[in-house]
Amino acid sequence: MKSYRKELWLEVPTRRAFVNITPQVEESLRESGVKEGFALVNSTHVTAAVFIDDDETGLYRHYEKWLEHLAPVVPTDPNDDDVIGEDIIDAHMKRLLMGREVVVAVTDGRLDFGHWENIFYGEFDGGRKKRVLVKIIGE
Amino acid sequence: MKSYRKELWLEVPTRRAFVNITPQVEESLRESGVKEGFALVNSTHVTAAVFIDDDETGLYRHYEKWLEHLAPVVPTDPNDDDVIGEDIIDAHMKRLLMGREVVVAVTDGRLDFGHWENIFYGEFDGGRKKRVLVKIIGE
Amino acid sequence: MKSYRKELWLEVPTRRAFVNITPQVEESLRESGVKEGFALVNSTHVTAAVFIDDDETGLYRHYEKWLEHLAPVVPTDPNDDDVIGEDIIDAHMKRLLMGREVVVAVTDGRLDFGHWENIFYGEFDGGRKKRVLVKIIGE
Repeated sequence: MKSYRKELWLEVPTRRAFVNITPQVEESLRESGVKEGFALVNSTHVTAAVFIDDDETGLYRHYEKWLEHLAPVVPTDPNDDDVIGEDIIDAHMKRLLMGREVVVAVTDGRLDFGHWENIFYGEFDGGRKKRVLVKIIGE
Repeated sequence: MKSYRKELWLEVPTRRAFVNITPQVEESLRESGVKEGFALVNSTHVTAAVFIDDDETGLYRHYEKWLEHLAPVVPTDPNDDDVIGEDIIDAHMKRLLMGREVVVAVTDGRLDFGHWENIFYGEFDGGRKKRVLVKIIGE
Repeated sequence: MKSYRKELWLEVPTRRAFVNITPQVEESLRESGVKEGFALVNSTHVTAAVFIDDDETGLYRHYEKWLEHLAPVVPTDPNDDDVIGEDIIDAHMKRLLMGREVVVAVTDGRLDFGHWENIFYGEFDGGRKKRVLVKIIGE
């Protein structure tokens, strides 16, 4: 069994953004030499997501509003000792909705994808360097 | 390491539906000959989901309403150049909530499931043939 | 290829709770002897979740309220034959939002985690013994 590991580093200048990382994952897969197996791609940060969707700008503009509606900023209570920062809680919730990881089949040395499938990184607390892990196992 | 791949084709006549695909995945697993490993089952379409839940009709009637509440149809703005179709955006969002894929343990040649676990296909933009990928690796 | 399987049993006395199960998964990994591969951790119950997040009490207090808001208790209709129990449907929906499973990379015999990553069990219908499955494959 072959095993391959690579870290992808992303630095999004804005607080929130969606970035198509399919080319970097495809490059990792070529480097791995794996022809048949699984590729795991996950955020190592709990305020960022990795998910699969269409590469369509209009979609992501709607996701911005939708996620703000479903997981809005949580106001902090000044009498609460155990507050972890008001603009952090919503980032955790948005990432939970979008997902931490994807597992993709590898077939004939390629990501075994449907026509519209792309791997996206979803940033909900940007402005600093963050890390995505690619781990590929197979033969 | 063994590796097995199969495409399941589904054609749901209605716009939305939930279909139990456990028997087809079990059949794929038998064909694979894998006794110990992982089975990945994913939608290859970005407007359909694969997830695990109880096979209970009452549940899915509630999910219909619940998903419509959390991810309603997005009205298009006629002044917006970048519109991708109003009844497509909600299908993407519903699928994001339900999930693209499941990874199931394979033990002794069987899906290593709890008593109520079943694999479901969730269609949110039906009326045409769509494809689910089953990829199994192991020994 | 090595393959390892372990059941973790949890009994949460309350209806809902979040439990950090990272130590038990790390112990399973040591027992497996796997150095490079994937670890799958999944709930075998359809009313409980397994997900990855920060081990921060303040966060989980907010998740309680947030999940109740997004997936509230569904009142039963007494004229409906096909009712599966009013306080069960919301448990299913909460678990769908939080996720059934996580797949974690194994590198050098350790869970290949970011600094704040912990594996949590989310119980939404507690008061009885429930089972989490750990399956590890690799070399």
